[in-house]
Amino acid sequence: MHGYSDRERVRLTDQATVLTELLHADTRYAPGARVLEAGCGTGAQTVILAHNSPRAAFTSVDVAPGSLAEARTRVRAAGHANVSFLRADLYDLPFPPAHFDHVFVCFVLEHVPDPVAALVALTRVLRPGGSLTVIEGDHGSAYFHPDSAHARRAIQCLVDLQRRSGGDSLIGRRLYPLLVRAGLRDVTVSPRMVYADASRPAVVDGFTRRTFTAMVEGVGEQAVGQGLVDAAGWAAGIRDLYRTAEDDGTFCYTFFKALASVSPAGRC
Amino acid sequence: MHGYSDRERVRLTDQATVLTELLHADTRYAPGARVLEAGCGTGAQTVILAHNSPRAAFTSVDVAPGSLAEARTRVRAAGHANVSFLRADLYDLPFPPAHFDHVFVCFVLEHVPDPVAALVALTRVLRPGGSLTVIEGDHGSAYFHPDSAHARRAIQCLVDLQRRSGGDSLIGRRLYPLLVRAGLRDVTVSPRMVYADASRPAVVDGFTRRTFTAMVEGVGEQAVGQGLVDAAGWAAGIRDLYRTAEDDGTFCYTFFKALASVSPAGRC
Repeated sequence: MHGYSDRERVRLTDQATVLTELLHADTRYAPGARVLEAGCGTGAQTVILAHNSPRAAFTSVDVAPGSLAEARTRVRAAGHANVSFLRADLYDLPFPPAHFDHVFVCFVLEHVPDPVAALVALTRVLRPGGSLTVIEGDHGSAYFHPDSAHARRAIQCLVDLQRRSGGDSLIGRRLYPLLVRAGLRDVTVSPRMVYADASRPAVVDGFTRRTFTAMVEGVGEQAVGQGLVDAAGWAAGIRDLYRTAEDDGTFCYTFFKALASVSPAGRC
Repeated sequence: MHGYSDRERVRLTDQATVLTELLHADTRYAPGARVLEAGCGTGAQTVILAHNSPRAAFTSVDVAPGSLAEARTRVRAAGHANVSFLRADLYDLPFPPAHFDHVFVCFVLEHVPDPVAALVALTRVLRPGGSLTVIEGDHGSAYFHPDSAHARRAIQCLVDLQRRSGGDSLIGRRLYPLLVRAGLRDVTVSPRMVYADASRPAVVDGFTRRTFTAMVEGVGEQAVGQGLVDAAGWAAGIRDLYRTAEDDGTFCYTFFKALASVSPAGRC
């Protein structure tokens, strides 16, 4: 669902690098564990999963053949042999019930019109007692100094565009109720906040500039084209977002990571 | 600057209890250290400081005699003998230069029209190499599920009221540039995020309900009286904030804690 342009691909690689520790450090799968990565896109998370759990057996699926091919190339280039790739639809996974020990889903539910239905579909292929890990952002968690109405407006365009295409870029804050509604057990959500100021130049550059602001910048044509903002307002918003990366600026954003299990009784 | 009503006093006590670990766990002063607590209010933080650093010598000052008397009573009742109280103005502290080893300021700069001037005044009484700790909230860091325009409007009333009285309740995000501008060195800011969902009932009750929403609720008369919102809109905002404390709700808020030192060259 990501990764269709070169620029987007570079952005996703930067994002993965800066956020690897924050989002992945506490995800390690045991040797031999069967893990489904649902919605692998171009493999930005796949290489991290494969690296961190070298003896687990991953199956990474995506509905877009182009992304999947790119993910395969990326994972092979990184030298990992513990990932199989398969084209598949989240809602129609070609696996028997309870096939996997663990399921991992990152930056996918934000795009999905009915995230509870998606979670139920994923739960079907998870064995009783297995674990589900979900990671999502929340664009409403972004705030910064200097504050700017233009910058807030530009971010809101992203939220509006996502909503128009059936997604929800404010989904991070509601992972808990979504997982509970999907019937998962032992749901634990932990926020992972990114904070950037001049004392953390790698975060300022890797996250504020090259991840978040670049992502917003990438939808400029759509936002202006669909009349969500005029060109001047858009330019001011992007300028003010980059402004927060200067020496007296700060930037805050929060990802949410949820861990849950399937009831031993199952719900197949 | 806090603590003028009974209800407010109860609120501040609840807040201190829930937030003690999050905000204070990494602040410990050595035996014999001379520590200034600037703006102690009714002593909600003072009892925690005195408890966590039992052999440090605290001097807690506030400009309001009533708050100071209450703080003294509270600290005595808790059995701490390592705190002296003194009525004093932040900008005109009755201490010689470099008198203290450490300065601690919590929920004070948000009320101050010129926080850089306040920091410079505090720095004067801090010895070269001494440490300054600052803790502030940021009301713009609040977001929640279910989202609600009424609830966001109610919070904005708090921000507007604070601004009208010369303060800034969005100050947390700019602690870093403020401390740098005040001439402090080695400035490190760490965000402390509060996240509440039904799996954390003590946080839902202690923070969402009894700290944050109670605080917003407390300014209703002012907000409506000053025409920032009509009575129906206000009531809807408060209702929607309490709504986030129900079983499928979530609530997020972030405090910022800054640690810095005074240059060995001093700036007296």
